[in-house]
Amino acid sequence: MESINLQHGSGGEKQTELLNNLIFKNLGNEFLDKKHDGAFLNISGKLAFSTDSFVVSPIFFKGGNIGELAVFGTVNDVSMCGAEPKYLSLSFIIEEGFSMEDFQKIINSIKIASEKAGVQIVTGDTKVVERGKGDKIYINTSGIGVIYENAKIGIEYIKPKQSIIINRDIASHGMAIMSEREGLKFDSEILSDTKNLNFEVKKLIENFGEKIHFLRDATRGGLASVLNEITSESNLGIHLFEDKILVEKQVKSACELLGLDPMYVANEGTFLCVCDDEIADEVLEILQRVNHHASKIGFITEEHAGKVIMESAFGGKRVVNPLIGEQLPRIC
Amino acid sequence: MESINLQHGSGGEKQTELLNNLIFKNLGNEFLDKKHDGAFLNISGKLAFSTDSFVVSPIFFKGGNIGELAVFGTVNDVSMCGAEPKYLSLSFIIEEGFSMEDFQKIINSIKIASEKAGVQIVTGDTKVVERGKGDKIYINTSGIGVIYENAKIGIEYIKPKQSIIINRDIASHGMAIMSEREGLKFDSEILSDTKNLNFEVKKLIENFGEKIHFLRDATRGGLASVLNEITSESNLGIHLFEDKILVEKQVKSACELLGLDPMYVANEGTFLCVCDDEIADEVLEILQRVNHHASKIGFITEEHAGKVIMESAFGGKRVVNPLIGEQLPRIC
Repeated sequence: MESINLQHGSGGEKQTELLNNLIFKNLGNEFLDKKHDGAFLNISGKLAFSTDSFVVSPIFFKGGNIGELAVFGTVNDVSMCGAEPKYLSLSFIIEEGFSMEDFQKIINSIKIASEKAGVQIVTGDTKVVERGKGDKIYINTSGIGVIYENAKIGIEYIKPKQSIIINRDIASHGMAIMSEREGLKFDSEILSDTKNLNFEVKKLIENFGEKIHFLRDATRGGLASVLNEITSESNLGIHLFEDKILVEKQVKSACELLGLDPMYVANEGTFLCVCDDEIADEVLEILQRVNHHASKIGFITEEHAGKVIMESAFGGKRVVNPLIGEQLPRIC
Repeated sequence: MESINLQHGSGGEKQTELLNNLIFKNLGNEFLDKKHDGAFLNISGKLAFSTDSFVVSPIFFKGGNIGELAVFGTVNDVSMCGAEPKYLSLSFIIEEGFSMEDFQKIINSIKIASEKAGVQIVTGDTKVVERGKGDKIYINTSGIGVIYENAKIGIEYIKPKQSIIINRDIASHGMAIMSEREGLKFDSEILSDTKNLNFEVKKLIENFGEKIHFLRDATRGGLASVLNEITSESNLGIHLFEDKILVEKQVKSACELLGLDPMYVANEGTFLCVCDDEIADEVLEILQRVNHHASKIGFITEEHAGKVIMESAFGGKRVVNPLIGEQLPRIC
């Protein structure tokens, strides 16, 4: 079976061949087709710009793969700025010997994912490194989006009494990856939540504009990390209701088996929204139409500034600390 | 000595610490300081967007390092669109065990390089992979620039009789890297040409606007590859004068020693400009103010469409073929 070799990254004919047969053929559009080192874009307004390198291992997992993740990850980061993602760059670092068939599968996933999210790949780069200097494939995507005119998203707009709403149950991406790595089997499979969130965000901003104050996807470090970032940057406190934070049964089992706290496990299609309390029920209703596990998990408070406090169903309280040290490497 | 470990890429407190102490502290600006996953930009006009992953080995070399290269490489790609580079994203893939001191040096180079080029790092990402799954550090930068109003750059504007001008002698970057790898010593050191080209481009567009038809830096694959791209995409021919293409003495020696043709060796601060013949002397004069090796190396022709022909000082002619196969891996 054919595989990627150093020639495919040398800037010569072999590279041109690879780009023409695989990348331009599958991902081509009016911008990419120019084959310039940069893309020429017509875009106006306030922009959001974001980048992420994806090093997830394994590269194929239940519910997704590194290609899909690379598209949706950046689409989501741009979305969380209150922006409509428009254009992506795409850059590969491939290890010599990587299977051409797997590369094709990944390109195909990138194609489908970008169509699904309504974004265009407009510029790219391919590098090949020697065997043992990489791990199959790493992908960087950077994204540009146009900020919605009525969006006003920022940690500085977070104030006491605002509600915190999450769009679904947590920890499935991290546990899908870990189950794959550890070879765990459950009654029902754990699927990664890898998903584009741009259309949910669009709906929220369209409906509620400036009443949506903050958006963030709970990726590396999980929900706990995002919440701690909020309290640390805003110098406010967060009060959580433990029984409102949902974890699917098989995900919970996997966490217990591996001694992991789902609050710190990475997600890929899970985001939280901080909004005025008066619209919380409506926000929830909109998000529940997509996933019935959407939930109002807590609120912002002046009390215990800088801390995230979780209240259990029985009224007990505990601090949710920031993640210290490594939990799950190469989860995204 | 302290080194990077997997915790620095986990999304937890160790990562926050690294980002605060090293990245935000050195590269901070109004955009990056927001510490959001994406940056909010105010920008208008037609934009250029480009991306590159840098995997150069060794990461430190005479005349530059991977950090500087990552900034200037993308600054140049954006410039070659006829645009003024404004904002960069910055994404690291670091191998576990990488020296913290070297990382600091690289961050410092990135700081200096971005100041020199007048661009801001506005968003970023840091991933850490296990030992043996990377090679010290890989860096991706993506860049956004604003296309000059009077620029009209594109392969479609290339026509017969236009002049081809290069801003300096060739092959020094590739040979600086190779000398480092092979431990070659020469009377005078070979320095990489790593350099930002945005100010030269600005001057050309300001002075000559639509009379500049095409710009391209001759990176991977060298000058021969760029020229062959032009002939292949435009379906025109190129006529070169061998004695106008300068190679410094020690670079030539190194090429001979390693059996390499300088026409195919990578550059990092070398670009060519295709312009109307009537302005060729003025373009040359402007470029020679920066580097006296700037030279008019040839012209576009209807003859031998799709081919690059080089005429020697003695009138002999040969075809400069596209690069086939690998010449120098991990040169950028």
